[in-house]
Amino acid sequence: MQPGQMAYDRGITVFSPDGRLFQVEYAREAVKKGSTTIGLKYKGGVALIVDKRSNSKLLEPKSTEKIHDIDDFIGCATSGLVADARVLVDEARKNAQVHRVNYGENIGVEMLVKKICDHKQNFTQYGGVRPFGTALLVAGTDDMGAHLYETDPSGALVSYKATGIGSGRPAVMEIFENEYADDMEYEAALLLGLKALNSAIEDKPKVESVEIGVADIGKKFRRLSEEEVSALIEKL
Amino acid sequence: MQPGQMAYDRGITVFSPDGRLFQVEYAREAVKKGSTTIGLKYKGGVALIVDKRSNSKLLEPKSTEKIHDIDDFIGCATSGLVADARVLVDEARKNAQVHRVNYGENIGVEMLVKKICDHKQNFTQYGGVRPFGTALLVAGTDDMGAHLYETDPSGALVSYKATGIGSGRPAVMEIFENEYADDMEYEAALLLGLKALNSAIEDKPKVESVEIGVADIGKKFRRLSEEEVSALIEKL
Amino acid sequence: MQPGQMAYDRGITVFSPDGRLFQVEYAREAVKKGSTTIGLKYKGGVALIVDKRSNSKLLEPKSTEKIHDIDDFIGCATSGLVADARVLVDEARKNAQVHRVNYGENIGVEMLVKKICDHKQNFTQYGGVRPFGTALLVAGTDDMGAHLYETDPSGALVSYKATGIGSGRPAVMEIFENEYADDMEYEAALLLGLKALNSAIEDKPKVESVEIGVADIGKKFRRLSEEEVSALIEKL
Amino acid sequence: MQPGQMAYDRGITVFSPDGRLFQVEYAREAVKKGSTTIGLKYKGGVALIVDKRSNSKLLEPKSTEKIHDIDDFIGCATSGLVADARVLVDEARKNAQVHRVNYGENIGVEMLVKKICDHKQNFTQYGGVRPFGTALLVAGTDDMGAHLYETDPSGALVSYKATGIGSGRPAVMEIFENEYADDMEYEAALLLGLKALNSAIEDKPKVESVEIGVADIGKKFRRLSEEEVSALIEKL
Amino acid sequence: MQPGQMAYDRGITVFSPDGRLFQVEYAREAVKKGSTTIGLKYKGGVALIVDKRSNSKLLEPKSTEKIHDIDDFIGCATSGLVADARVLVDEARKNAQVHRVNYGENIGVEMLVKKICDHKQNFTQYGGVRPFGTALLVAGTDDMGAHLYETDPSGALVSYKATGIGSGRPAVMEIFENEYADDMEYEAALLLGLKALNSAIEDKPKVESVEIGVADIGKKFRRLSEEEVSALIEKL
Amino acid sequence: MQPGQMAYDRGITVFSPDGRLFQVEYAREAVKKGSTTIGLKYKGGVALIVDKRSNSKLLEPKSTEKIHDIDDFIGCATSGLVADARVLVDEARKNAQVHRVNYGENIGVEMLVKKICDHKQNFTQYGGVRPFGTALLVAGTDDMGAHLYETDPSGALVSYKATGIGSGRPAVMEIFENEYADDMEYEAALLLGLKALNSAIEDKPKVESVEIGVADIGKKFRRLSEEEVSALIEKL
Amino acid sequence: MQPGQMAYDRGITVFSPDGRLFQVEYAREAVKKGSTTIGLKYKGGVALIVDKRSNSKLLEPKSTEKIHDIDDFIGCATSGLVADARVLVDEARKNAQVHRVNYGENIGVEMLVKKICDHKQNFTQYGGVRPFGTALLVAGTDDMGAHLYETDPSGALVSYKATGIGSGRPAVMEIFENEYADDMEYEAALLLGLKALNSAIEDKPKVESVEIGVADIGKKFRRLSEEEVSALIEKL
Repeated sequence: MQPGQMAYDRGITVFSPDGRLFQVEYAREAVKKGSTTIGLKYKGGVALIVDKRSNSKLLEPKSTEKIHDIDDFIGCATSGLVADARVLVDEARKNAQVHRVNYGENIGVEMLVKKICDHKQNFTQYGGVRPFGTALLVAGTDDMGAHLYETDPSGALVSYKATGIGSGRPAVMEIFENEYADDMEYEAALLLGLKALNSAIEDKPKVESVEIGVADIGKKFRRLSEEEVSALIEKL
Repeated sequence: MQPGQMAYDRGITVFSPDGRLFQVEYAREAVKKGSTTIGLKYKGGVALIVDKRSNSKLLEPKSTEKIHDIDDFIGCATSGLVADARVLVDEARKNAQVHRVNYGENIGVEMLVKKICDHKQNFTQYGGVRPFGTALLVAGTDDMGAHLYETDPSGALVSYKATGIGSGRPAVMEIFENEYADDMEYEAALLLGLKALNSAIEDKPKVESVEIGVADIGKKFRRLSEEEVSALIEKL
Repeated sequence: MQPGQMAYDRGITVFSPDGRLFQVEYAREAVKKGSTTIGLKYKGGVALIVDKRSNSKLLEPKSTEKIHDIDDFIGCATSGLVADARVLVDEARKNAQVHRVNYGENIGVEMLVKKICDHKQNFTQYGGVRPFGTALLVAGTDDMGAHLYETDPSGALVSYKATGIGSGRPAVMEIFENEYADDMEYEAALLLGLKALNSAIEDKPKVESVEIGVADIGKKFRRLSEEEVSALIEKL
Repeated sequence: MQPGQMAYDRGITVFSPDGRLFQVEYAREAVKKGSTTIGLKYKGGVALIVDKRSNSKLLEPKSTEKIHDIDDFIGCATSGLVADARVLVDEARKNAQVHRVNYGENIGVEMLVKKICDHKQNFTQYGGVRPFGTALLVAGTDDMGAHLYETDPSGALVSYKATGIGSGRPAVMEIFENEYADDMEYEAALLLGLKALNSAIEDKPKVESVEIGVADIGKKFRRLSEEEVSALIEKL
Repeated sequence: MQPGQMAYDRGITVFSPDGRLFQVEYAREAVKKGSTTIGLKYKGGVALIVDKRSNSKLLEPKSTEKIHDIDDFIGCATSGLVADARVLVDEARKNAQVHRVNYGENIGVEMLVKKICDHKQNFTQYGGVRPFGTALLVAGTDDMGAHLYETDPSGALVSYKATGIGSGRPAVMEIFENEYADDMEYEAALLLGLKALNSAIEDKPKVESVEIGVADIGKKFRRLSEEEVSALIEKL
Repeated sequence: MQPGQMAYDRGITVFSPDGRLFQVEYAREAVKKGSTTIGLKYKGGVALIVDKRSNSKLLEPKSTEKIHDIDDFIGCATSGLVADARVLVDEARKNAQVHRVNYGENIGVEMLVKKICDHKQNFTQYGGVRPFGTALLVAGTDDMGAHLYETDPSGALVSYKATGIGSGRPAVMEIFENEYADDMEYEAALLLGLKALNSAIEDKPKVESVEIGVADIGKKFRRLSEEEVSALIEKL
Repeated sequence: MQPGQMAYDRGITVFSPDGRLFQVEYAREAVKKGSTTIGLKYKGGVALIVDKRSNSKLLEPKSTEKIHDIDDFIGCATSGLVADARVLVDEARKNAQVHRVNYGENIGVEMLVKKICDHKQNFTQYGGVRPFGTALLVAGTDDMGAHLYETDPSGALVSYKATGIGSGRPAVMEIFENEYADDMEYEAALLLGLKALNSAIEDKPKVESVEIGVADIGKKFRRLSEEEVSALIEKL
């Protein structure tokens, strides 16, 4: 790091001379250090696959759960600063509940994601705060079908067919670019997701270190049981 | 960058000794890195043409849509920071709705653009914030005819017959200065726009990587269908 | 620029050791780069003459209009940052309307200009903002006759018989000091103004690149038609 | 510490270029200097064990009590800045009371810990404050069983079976990783905890320098009597 | 200016090690650059004499008027930043009007000056603002007789028999110390004032470049007519 | 001044490494430059003696009065920044009036002084302001007898039998330490005070340059007449 | 002081890399420079002993009183910045009165001390202020017996049997560690306290330079009379 760079990297309300927001980019570094988190669509739904390997047997397994319900039909997984993620997930839940109270219906996935991202964007334009050091993969279904969104610390949102965030993203994306196909069947998609995770963590996933959430159109978002995960890993 | 320069480039509330606002200029750099976005008028209307080439097949096509409705008769396209753009588009929509509620009529294009630009200007004069790193092309029709406005991060607005923003602007403007004529017919204008885009991206536009929105006087702002875009590209 | 200087040039709430406000002086530099704008009184009225040469045929002519109505009997022209100017003109219009609503009469020119200048001064004494990077020439008539005011970024106001702002000011002032006379007739005054503009832009004014507004005592402020401008240029 | 580092270590609203929050990390150093505090679960409950050795006979023993009741069924122990800890414990108590008033029931342990951690996270994202320089071990029971949570200055929370904070953490964790087993009996677990403390303070615990709190499912959180502690130490 | 000095000269809320407020002293420099303004008492009244030489014939004479009415019996003249002066004069007028509304009587001269000075002092003790770069000479009459006050940027006020501010102060004060006498007659006093002005501007005052205001006990504050000024200059 | 020192001397909310508040100490320097002000008790009362020598005959004598009434039975004199002193005296008067309105009795001297000092202390602990650069000697009587208080910029208050502030303090204190006795008679005390002033200003006091205020128990605080002062000086 | 240190010692909202709060530590230095203040318990009560030697006979003895009543049964003594101490004592008194009004009973000593310390802690975590540069010894009795608390600038509180603050603390603590015993009789304890003070000030205490306050269980907090102090010193 040169002194020249240091002159722009402080304070989120400052552009660098080439039009970059360093604080936002630094926040993305926090995401890049996060655990690998994968999302991909299949025919009729969308899945989240998370690496929850723990480096200590002293941790409560429940404590390492990394897939969160936001609403009945929407779930999410995060990479980056865990306390920031918790705050964002709470924000998302509150938005979903407020929508239901106001309109008597489930919030659409895109609207929900936009609300989270507007919240994130605010933290990149006003002084006295820092951006959220966390990215979210939001998976859910609504009247428009199944959706998979990735949000980043800038407040940008992108809708993917298949994607990954966290430290394993490069490995995951390479596999998906080569092998992902539209309208994959449920099992084929999840096996591909596990294969991508396998590649990212350079280890075979084990039932206790993988968490999978699925949103099937017309059904509630749910976590796969250990048996379901086991069966998938076996087939892998 | 010399130390001497560094002394003025922080904080939007600071003029440089030669009367420049560096933060606003740096925000313009973010626009110059954005995707190429073109607007041009034709006899009886105005069109927006956007480069939406994606570097990944994993992206949902809908996610890359870059033309946004603001009101029934007004649409816009943006270049620069995408999260900032989303916030500005929402601001514009809110202004349009508030106008309708208050006055029972569609907001005029110029009034709408001025409101967006006043919002932008605020972010260049008051401390604790940064300018918006995004430019908008606003195309629309009202009682006064068809309009095409370009807004920049300073809050300046200019009404063009034909213009382009984003990384391809120099190439686009060169073509338009040479070949654009007042009162071009619809098809001729759109073909010229596509030619300009072609020149900017140094590649032939494909139906899946071009998005076109048109505002015909007396009709609602609408996106061209794939068939319409295809037909135009073919003719190109 | 020496390091010694740099120590006072930031933050508007800081005097330099010799009692100067650098930020205000830097804002004046933004004015000095603006387009040439001329105002001068004649017998029974006052005129504004603006250079609106455009460097692109793609611009809508209306977009480059640089003379603004503030109230029925008051108009203004600006030099400097265009977004700042728009905000100030809106502020001026609001003041004029509020006055009419409160008192049932047109606002006096001097009172209006003072209100604009108080607004400007505020931006030079309180922290967290920057001065307006724009100067206004305000021309108008009221019960006291015809008035021509120049305001600068410090919030100072001066009443002139004839003056110019923007990049051509030195050339304009030289001509006026030598050739301007009290109680010139309408046509003579406008021809002198065009001559001054001619000298400032080092080019002969053309009908499409000159905008002229006049406030005749007892009549509303109005822009000259193309024919009127043409006729004047011809005589020149 | 190099000058290069110094450039990011101030202000909590600033990410370092590699995505770290130095102020949060520095706050963790305050925790690492704190007294050793241990928590571990046993069959049917959870215990907190604290090193309260005093370096002066002039201190009132009560003053050195380091285990605090939060609610009838929840207790906690802290490491780090003692004034910060007191403020957080008060915050926790208030949350527990508000919950009871609002819902007529005891607050769940996880909900309570999340509220504390949201409070902590706020102090890492907004300017004008510093993070809390304290970590909490929260032990309690509710309808879901016995819980042991560790919170850190970032606002992260982790549910452990057995853990330690403060200066002796490395020694404690080494013992637990090797010797802790699920579903240990009450006495075995407490003896293991005392052994870990023994190892951390490199001294045999004495009845007057150890404080133990236990939360048995279905019973209120309570401190062990001197006799109970004595008996345990004897067995050790 | 040495670096050592630079360390205290910013921010009004900072004392220098020797107990000075540099920002206030720098603001006084702005006053020292102002036009020469003189006040002196005579038997039964008090006068203000101002240098209003203009460097351009294009200025409206009225625009250069530098003596302002505050209330029927009080007037003032200023040196320093003109926009700051206008704001202070308005503040003074408001105070005078509020007093009349509240108490049904004219405000006393001392009370008015104290209110202006309290306003000024505030701008030297609270952050986020800068001191007023202007000094006022206030001349007026009330039940206590005729008064002449000088206020400076610190908010200090001094009651003089005769004084001067602005660039010519040293020359003016030298003359007054030598030649001013208590209870001078009206004409003698004004001739002495003009002589002092003469000395300060190193030129003979002309009727168009001198402005004189007088407050005679029991009469309203008024400006001398051109004839009166002419007559005085003639006698000089 | 070394760079090392400069690092703590700014901002009142910063302690130096050795626990000092530099800004408060610098404010005391402003007091040390003030005019010499003396207070001393005598049997049945307390007196204030002030050096009001003026360096110009042009000043109005009244303007240099330096002893202020606060309430019927309390007066004060100040050293340091005069505008700050005026603000503090006003604050004291307001406190005295509010007390009378609320409780229907005169405020006690100690209570009044504490209120002033709390106000002063606030300006040493909260950011965005600077300490008052002024010290007050408050002399008054109440049910508890006669009181003499000295307050300093830190907000500390000390009750003296005899003391001095301002540039002559060292000379004054030396005399008082040697010659002041408890229960001196009125005249003896005042002559001692004048002797101390004499020593401080290295000149014989003259009637026009000395101002004396006395608070006799049971009588209102009052200024001595010129005759009284004259008589005292004669005896000296 | 090295430049490296300087980088963390400003602003209370900043941790140093090793988890320290320099501003709090610097505030403690102000305490260490304070006058020696001693507190110790005896059978049935608790005493405060303060060094109030004065370096000037001109001070009013009452002014140097350093033991303050907070409530009927609670008193305190302070070391450090005297203006800060006064503010804290007032805060404590207000808390005691509010408690009585709200609950109709005397506030408990611990609750009172916690409230003071919460107030102090706030000044170490929020920006724009500085910590209190003062420590308090609070002595009092309530239903739980006699209590002696020491509070420091961080907001930490410790309950002691015997302790000292201020410049003499090291000497005092050495004596107490060696000679203090639980349940000392009243006289023995006070003689030990005086001996400790003797050692700290390296001089024999005199009746006029020692102030003693005692809180006997069931009796109000009171200052010892001169006779009582005399008798104790004699026995010493």
